[in-house]
Amino acid sequence: MQDRYFSLDPAQRSAARELYLSVKNLPLICPHGHVDPRLFADPDYQFGSPVNLLIIPDHYVFRMLYSQGIALDELGIPSLSPSKSPPAKRGDLPGGVESDHREIWRLVCANWRLFRATPTGIWLRDELADVFGISLKLKRENADAIYDAIDEKLQSDAFRPRALYERFNIEALATTDAATDRLEAHQAIRDSGWGGRIIPTFRPDAVVNINGEAWRENIDRLSDVAGSTVSDYGSYIRALEERRAFFKAMGATATDHAALTAYTESMGAGEAEAIFQRALAGEATAKDAARFSGHMLIEMARMSSEDGLVMQLHIGSWRDHNPSIHARYGRDMGADIPIGSEFTKNLKPLLDRFGNQPDMTLVLFNLDETTYSRELAPLAGHYPILRLGPPWWFFDSWLGMTRFLDAVVETTGIYNLAGFNDDTRAYPSIPTRHDVWRRVCADWLAGQLVRGFIDEEDAFEMIRALAYDLAKQTYRLDG
Amino acid sequence: MQDRYFSLDPAQRSAARELYLSVKNLPLICPHGHVDPRLFADPDYQFGSPVNLLIIPDHYVFRMLYSQGIALDELGIPSLSPSKSPPAKRGDLPGGVESDHREIWRLVCANWRLFRATPTGIWLRDELADVFGISLKLKRENADAIYDAIDEKLQSDAFRPRALYERFNIEALATTDAATDRLEAHQAIRDSGWGGRIIPTFRPDAVVNINGEAWRENIDRLSDVAGSTVSDYGSYIRALEERRAFFKAMGATATDHAALTAYTESMGAGEAEAIFQRALAGEATAKDAARFSGHMLIEMARMSSEDGLVMQLHIGSWRDHNPSIHARYGRDMGADIPIGSEFTKNLKPLLDRFGNQPDMTLVLFNLDETTYSRELAPLAGHYPILRLGPPWWFFDSWLGMTRFLDAVVETTGIYNLAGFNDDTRAYPSIPTRHDVWRRVCADWLAGQLVRGFIDEEDAFEMIRALAYDLAKQTYRLDG
Amino acid sequence: MQDRYFSLDPAQRSAARELYLSVKNLPLICPHGHVDPRLFADPDYQFGSPVNLLIIPDHYVFRMLYSQGIALDELGIPSLSPSKSPPAKRGDLPGGVESDHREIWRLVCANWRLFRATPTGIWLRDELADVFGISLKLKRENADAIYDAIDEKLQSDAFRPRALYERFNIEALATTDAATDRLEAHQAIRDSGWGGRIIPTFRPDAVVNINGEAWRENIDRLSDVAGSTVSDYGSYIRALEERRAFFKAMGATATDHAALTAYTESMGAGEAEAIFQRALAGEATAKDAARFSGHMLIEMARMSSEDGLVMQLHIGSWRDHNPSIHARYGRDMGADIPIGSEFTKNLKPLLDRFGNQPDMTLVLFNLDETTYSRELAPLAGHYPILRLGPPWWFFDSWLGMTRFLDAVVETTGIYNLAGFNDDTRAYPSIPTRHDVWRRVCADWLAGQLVRGFIDEEDAFEMIRALAYDLAKQTYRLDG
Repeated sequence: MQDRYFSLDPAQRSAARELYLSVKNLPLICPHGHVDPRLFADPDYQFGSPVNLLIIPDHYVFRMLYSQGIALDELGIPSLSPSKSPPAKRGDLPGGVESDHREIWRLVCANWRLFRATPTGIWLRDELADVFGISLKLKRENADAIYDAIDEKLQSDAFRPRALYERFNIEALATTDAATDRLEAHQAIRDSGWGGRIIPTFRPDAVVNINGEAWRENIDRLSDVAGSTVSDYGSYIRALEERRAFFKAMGATATDHAALTAYTESMGAGEAEAIFQRALAGEATAKDAARFSGHMLIEMARMSSEDGLVMQLHIGSWRDHNPSIHARYGRDMGADIPIGSEFTKNLKPLLDRFGNQPDMTLVLFNLDETTYSRELAPLAGHYPILRLGPPWWFFDSWLGMTRFLDAVVETTGIYNLAGFNDDTRAYPSIPTRHDVWRRVCADWLAGQLVRGFIDEEDAFEMIRALAYDLAKQTYRLDG
Repeated sequence: MQDRYFSLDPAQRSAARELYLSVKNLPLICPHGHVDPRLFADPDYQFGSPVNLLIIPDHYVFRMLYSQGIALDELGIPSLSPSKSPPAKRGDLPGGVESDHREIWRLVCANWRLFRATPTGIWLRDELADVFGISLKLKRENADAIYDAIDEKLQSDAFRPRALYERFNIEALATTDAATDRLEAHQAIRDSGWGGRIIPTFRPDAVVNINGEAWRENIDRLSDVAGSTVSDYGSYIRALEERRAFFKAMGATATDHAALTAYTESMGAGEAEAIFQRALAGEATAKDAARFSGHMLIEMARMSSEDGLVMQLHIGSWRDHNPSIHARYGRDMGADIPIGSEFTKNLKPLLDRFGNQPDMTLVLFNLDETTYSRELAPLAGHYPILRLGPPWWFFDSWLGMTRFLDAVVETTGIYNLAGFNDDTRAYPSIPTRHDVWRRVCADWLAGQLVRGFIDEEDAFEMIRALAYDLAKQTYRLDG
Repeated sequence: MQDRYFSLDPAQRSAARELYLSVKNLPLICPHGHVDPRLFADPDYQFGSPVNLLIIPDHYVFRMLYSQGIALDELGIPSLSPSKSPPAKRGDLPGGVESDHREIWRLVCANWRLFRATPTGIWLRDELADVFGISLKLKRENADAIYDAIDEKLQSDAFRPRALYERFNIEALATTDAATDRLEAHQAIRDSGWGGRIIPTFRPDAVVNINGEAWRENIDRLSDVAGSTVSDYGSYIRALEERRAFFKAMGATATDHAALTAYTESMGAGEAEAIFQRALAGEATAKDAARFSGHMLIEMARMSSEDGLVMQLHIGSWRDHNPSIHARYGRDMGADIPIGSEFTKNLKPLLDRFGNQPDMTLVLFNLDETTYSRELAPLAGHYPILRLGPPWWFFDSWLGMTRFLDAVVETTGIYNLAGFNDDTRAYPSIPTRHDVWRRVCADWLAGQLVRGFIDEEDAFEMIRALAYDLAKQTYRLDG
């Protein structure tokens, strides 16, 4: 359905279609996401079963099924090794992980009504149609036929990640990599001579969050990969700088930072050292951790002001909110819940130092929509370093993106936006996600056009910026 | 006007009409409200005058008139007994309550413009037309004619509550009753042999809020009705369990809890006992009260996990915000004002213990719309026990309900919603309130349908779920 | 384009047009704004160049250009005297202010794409068309032609402020004036015999904010203009009362108060005196300042209850958020960033004392849209003194105003609103701003009308109220 999702008014619909068609075939810029680079390192990489591809790695899917009483074990989600996992208790966490993927697929299809009117539902439907050529509706009766059809495609050469990269018309795709990653897959891609542009992104959270699960081990790993012992704050900073230089040499144009809040604080080297030593000794408090995190955001901004890596900040998700699920299955199990966010006060210490740098870029993301019009748009409409990331996570949806445009554009225009991120680990869903964004923008601009807020020249330049140019410029992928 | 309120696009309007017609005549499920059970205990119950029925008990109506300088006395609102009421002061609280109901009605009609574009205005207009057969517009010129027409109807047998129950096609109606209520009216209904399903709901706030106005008296009453002296925390808990069992035996399927915030805290029995003893001694602090309330929410969840009563939580209303009005007229006088709400942190202790129970249900309500997309939808899209209550109070309106669907469905789907509550003490407005909800849902789904997000099969199943099934299932009224 | 901005549905568009035409030519009520009264004191006042008129004084314009890396110096923004300004540093704050206004204008036009779909863009386009008769699009190619056309108009007698006042059909225009202002320009206007109604508004922030930049100097100035030495809290209060009486005698009908939050606190005279003395001694703490500000809001309400001046409260803007910009250019440089707001708790002490006064008016404004439905509409739908100001600052936009109506009208109706404020220092933009408000209201009411929420009688009375009557009544300009 060529005009799917567009508004119904004939004039707006027609304008939306024209705007959409003007960008439909532009290459995809994927400056932030979680696709595993090993997909591209091995030219013969094969996705496993449909369930390996579409269910087990996708917490958007299994969280919703779980919310309706379907146990994660029934969905094939692997639990941690028995020694780490607590003994099974309560009816909701039965032992015995389902291993028959066809059965799992049937269960998912039988419950697919849960995804009606959700982005997950729309992405999978559109992905099956547009990438796999399957137009059957996801429901119990069609489960086996769809399973077989996907499975058959996945065996074919056309469904190798590199082939899909070409077919998807991707221009650049950034992965997200730990600061301690040796980027061996990225090196293999480079060595292979393949022409795709897969670049790493520097994500130091695991060596910055001093109260993180394995911080101490990660510091040792940092020493290891940096080739110099991290024993104090000074050597720690030097190791991070060294890693950033390595990532940059490997093609990175950006860093990414996650924190619970946007709290920033400039502390002296002495205080930072004291906290760092407490952390090494396993004696850091929760307050130490929050303060150190806020300090390191400024320190990372300082490094970005020097090495030119674009800084991304994702805040506001209470990770692993459900302790039973976390203990049994580990992290990223669909139990990350947003909290309210604040930027005006929290980000001020960082902005006081770097906010006026015209040659630096900080892209902001969060999960509290109230910040859009109240703080983010006014901040980005003033400070040269700021750009607003597209709606994140739950808000990467038709209505979520529409609310975002409604809330920010009047105050900050579109040129302080960072374009689109697909932010996904579900590689084959990438074209669909970009398509939804391009459709939303086309429809939104069409509304502005036919009601007389903007003219045709504006509208066509704006749709191109939103669909392609802004992401490329913001993330310095035009170099 | 058959298509009233629907969107104007011909395709959407037509789809909305079809969806609406498919559920228009389904029975009404009324799982949460404040209708007085005595209406049904007496087969010959007569509502008083139009003012007794429509103005004096309805704080939605008189708060708005008050906001424009009309004194509550002029509207016939009874003040507390002179001994409890402070001496009249200021021009806004003159002495002398109006007792001429026709005069009150004229005053209301002369000011009915205040309700233009409000749900109160729409409900009363639709109720007069659909229940009373009166299509005159509410305005000064029509005041007497409308008064007489209502009055005449109210005298007739067709306007006895039981007759209206049949005419309204109500399938079940839950009242809200203090934990200390002997449920005599409910017993009388049962004894009468009448076939209507009127069931109680267990609301223990008055014995849980240790800083409430008459907590000590309510504890004595609890001892009394439970038939065992409540002298310590243990006997208190046993008395509550006993009352819940009694309510359940009387047909209750749910409990209801109001709190200022969603704060929960698990405390040991020793600490709970210490606070309880301070409360008995009249020495509990405000902090004690907040902590005890948070503890008791978890304790009530524990009881629900055992007895299967669905738990409802209404938070975020600062009750009796206006001390002059409270002193003179008492509680529920239209001066309850919302505050910001938070669930992700506050509800965590409760969810840590009971969030994964697939056989338990906790329905959440609050008055801060920012929680919809930020916290409630993500929480309900993960935790098996959670369902989202429909938009509460001020948001039980066309735009309020639309914003709710816009904000939550993409993240949590519709199957984590609790369907509709009319939550009213205005019995004859019940069909109108359900009609508005059904129309909103039909129009919203029609928009999803004609724009291609869902198909016809989805839309017809979803409208039925929203209009009928979800309320019935959530509140276990299908047993 | 007569129907610009209206919804596209033919029925709604036609209704919007009729409603709009019914109020299009009503006089403009301008009860709150920042136009300099000297414009009207001098009958021959001439605006300077197009850049003097449209760029240099308008922080809406230059903040956005600055956000994209254009230095304020390039835009002709004067920096503070060298002695006060810090040495130039970083590339973003180069020395050397551009003085060629034609060059500045070209730079602005070359970057005008930044204002696509923003209210600033729409206002300037409509103002050029409707006030200046220029329909060329703002872009680099047209820069010189537009500059010349504006410049020519500004030389003509038709563009003297008094002539524009007549042409704009302004009925009353309130300026905003420091408590210490001698109102000499207002006196000159009165003395001139010209018939325009230009009235002052009493804004005491600079003598209330004890931690403000020049509080001590302002207190001396207050002593001076009040003709009695302010040496303690008692004489301070008396001086303020005297100034209010003077403003009222000069035509003022309102006061205006800005604060970071809506915090209010009733303190005894002794405590107020102690803080005041600490402030005089230069020893007041930040907490003293916040408490004193909260106390003075109540004291100002007390004075309003006595002298009948309408009280306005603007909260929630973190002024001068960017210290580099503030140090170099001073205040009001586009770096005021909103913070979250709270009214239910903060305003309670004031409402406890004055909320029930039917003959008093407090108009509330803030920059956190979440307060609209959660706190402001419920508060205004109960307390007789409250009216809601129109959407402020960033939200004085098509979507901002639509969200406001959507959020508040269902709960508080339209009769608790204060109508429109243009709140501008850009005098020639006044008709455009009112026109946008009238169009938004017409379109919103048309939607309500054609969908059946209100009828024609309602709609025509409501549009008149929103466009004209409510502002006039709220600000007591009908006396």
